[in-house]
Amino acid sequence: MLQSLLFVPTLRETPKEAEVTSHKLLLRGGYIRQNAAGIYSYLPLAYRIIQKIENIIREELNKIGCSELLMPALQPKDMWVESGRWDVYGKELMRLNDRHDREFCLGPTHEEVITTLVREYINSYKKLPLALYQIQTKYRDEFRPRFGLMRGREFIMKDLYTFHANTEDLDEWYLKVRKAYCNIFDRLGLNYRIVQADSGQIGGSASEEFVVLCDIGEDTIVYSDQSEFAANIEVYNLSEGEPSPDGKGTIKHAKGIEVGHIFKLGTKYSDAMKAEFFDKDQSKKSIIMGCYGIGVSRLLMAILEQHNDDQKVFWPETVAPFKVHIISLGKEGTEIDNQARALYQKMLTKNIEVLFDDRDERAGVKFSDADLMGIPYRIIFGKKVDEGIVELKKLADNTVTDVKIEDIDFTNFL
Amino acid sequence: MLQSLLFVPTLRETPKEAEVTSHKLLLRGGYIRQNAAGIYSYLPLAYRIIQKIENIIREELNKIGCSELLMPALQPKDMWVESGRWDVYGKELMRLNDRHDREFCLGPTHEEVITTLVREYINSYKKLPLALYQIQTKYRDEFRPRFGLMRGREFIMKDLYTFHANTEDLDEWYLKVRKAYCNIFDRLGLNYRIVQADSGQIGGSASEEFVVLCDIGEDTIVYSDQSEFAANIEVYNLSEGEPSPDGKGTIKHAKGIEVGHIFKLGTKYSDAMKAEFFDKDQSKKSIIMGCYGIGVSRLLMAILEQHNDDQKVFWPETVAPFKVHIISLGKEGTEIDNQARALYQKMLTKNIEVLFDDRDERAGVKFSDADLMGIPYRIIFGKKVDEGIVELKKLADNTVTDVKIEDIDFTNFL
Repeated sequence: MLQSLLFVPTLRETPKEAEVTSHKLLLRGGYIRQNAAGIYSYLPLAYRIIQKIENIIREELNKIGCSELLMPALQPKDMWVESGRWDVYGKELMRLNDRHDREFCLGPTHEEVITTLVREYINSYKKLPLALYQIQTKYRDEFRPRFGLMRGREFIMKDLYTFHANTEDLDEWYLKVRKAYCNIFDRLGLNYRIVQADSGQIGGSASEEFVVLCDIGEDTIVYSDQSEFAANIEVYNLSEGEPSPDGKGTIKHAKGIEVGHIFKLGTKYSDAMKAEFFDKDQSKKSIIMGCYGIGVSRLLMAILEQHNDDQKVFWPETVAPFKVHIISLGKEGTEIDNQARALYQKMLTKNIEVLFDDRDERAGVKFSDADLMGIPYRIIFGKKVDEGIVELKKLADNTVTDVKIEDIDFTNFL
Repeated sequence: MLQSLLFVPTLRETPKEAEVTSHKLLLRGGYIRQNAAGIYSYLPLAYRIIQKIENIIREELNKIGCSELLMPALQPKDMWVESGRWDVYGKELMRLNDRHDREFCLGPTHEEVITTLVREYINSYKKLPLALYQIQTKYRDEFRPRFGLMRGREFIMKDLYTFHANTEDLDEWYLKVRKAYCNIFDRLGLNYRIVQADSGQIGGSASEEFVVLCDIGEDTIVYSDQSEFAANIEVYNLSEGEPSPDGKGTIKHAKGIEVGHIFKLGTKYSDAMKAEFFDKDQSKKSIIMGCYGIGVSRLLMAILEQHNDDQKVFWPETVAPFKVHIISLGKEGTEIDNQARALYQKMLTKNIEVLFDDRDERAGVKFSDADLMGIPYRIIFGKKVDEGIVELKKLADNTVTDVKIEDIDFTNFL
């Protein structure tokens, strides 16, 4: 991609609205812009990262047998009355009337819609289990939206719902999804913890949060070492605390960003909304449910919070907006610029995700913009091009080496 | 993918709500379900097709230098007051108040948001042209939603906005986008026409529609042979009419589904919202804009309308939910079923998009469900498996041939 055609409105100064580092960098780097309190546009750099996050989530969920669908944001009031949440959800639920004065809400979550969909079809234990997810825009009218993408009013979520004939099957799927979540957050390059959580307005019997540790977090987290999981998955320890001898875990407080939340819902929604099936013994039962969320747009911020040094950004390769950033310090038409363009073209033919800074800007501007973009490999075409040499900077280990253009190893960039 | 884990709630009878063939098939085949009038869930089969449509659009737009972003659905009233559209848009604009009683709308289109974003950054001709698009959920409160995805209230659109320093550049980009649209609709396997159109509530000087011809269309279309395009792109003729001798085109009426619309907006929004730049001669000018839409969810219906024989579906290979459908007529544990599973596993390792009907259902149910799924290649494991032979059905030319399992050519399915 040519940088001149990418819309990256970088800022020299940090807007006052930003209080935390990742939010400052997202604004300064031209990743996001606020349209109204808690409502953002994801500009091309950010949206490329978000799409990579989404695809990692898809891969891991599809691998364990989940199917993707897309439900509407507009949800009719009657479903929420049926589940009993219309009156209890409060002001965080954005409500509106259509032209015929029928009441709707903008979904903060989709238990009502998915339960309505599934109850029509699931009439037998033979059609269970089922695991359905979507990646979708959600709405929550926060009283005081803040910290950029941390606490927004319109945000992107992945929500998965599973359906089971018995609690053993729910437990098995819960662990499968929990492991998939670990794979996802590992691939995203995150340092995170799994902690016991409050089920809040969603309801249900058991729930855990995936929390990315950092200073800006809002949650006070409680560490748990649940032995039922310990056999399957490494349980993370807070650096300041170790599990107590009884194996029940030690309680610690720390700050963190909640990026995932998994719930054993049980039959809360299927009881209220009559989602029932006939079991093997012909008895009628409520479908047992699980639900599992990931905050996709919030992850953009959480990853950045762990991948910056206050002034510079270094995205993990798995989500970086591009793999390679070619910067030419020569004006158009010079040998330096021609060589840079030639390498760019060659990389395009090899399907390398490469960004070429073709803008007519000073070197200082190009470098400071590049530092905010955090693309893993940077290749700088400068004075040594007449000796056939360029600078290769690898952000992950902060090394710069002179390399001959013909010696550049493309396999690193695929 | 195992069919038992895919959520495809097929129906034996057609719901009364459906009036047109494609809508009937989408409901019968378990592709979509209505949540409220004009508001649908896209179930896994449909969403796989939609994602393929979206990726074809992305590929063709990225190829010509467009960048993807994502803007919010919630738009503050003040932007719409600034453009002058808040009071004129009428009841089709869904409006709501937040908890602080601030007014918002759910965007039916994004000229206001994109103009606000771009005007902050584009201050010089050096930063033009720019082409930004999104694939996003849009809202229009139709008085009488109908025909399934044809006239919905929540729907998926691709909207592209281009920004230019002069009309020559707009004209050049308009043709580039027009050609990209032709590539997109060609790849989607559509029989379509390009026709002159009314600019409606969007405004602007010139506009054309891409119309898929079929009986259910709502538009009365007028054929145009605009010589400015004729040099670049084949201009389509309506079958009933030929261009008149003066080269201005002949006027014909027909039914069609509008799937794309391209506009030369000019300075309508940049004038109203003061999106200005300094040109080469240091004079201040309004940015010249173009805008270009594609109805993504509507395309699902338009493609189906041209790819069915009333009872059966045959998706074009470019958008089919899977490439291969393996149907085993043997019970689990039989040689027939084991062989079918072995082929399924082998295809998975080759990254073939394959669906395996592993359900404990009668052959008749499996076949009638398969006919509604329309997967291009169907491999049936039946009695001849003991001779090492299966049936290969190719939907595109409606042929069925006996093939030896070891002779199946995987290259057809990649």
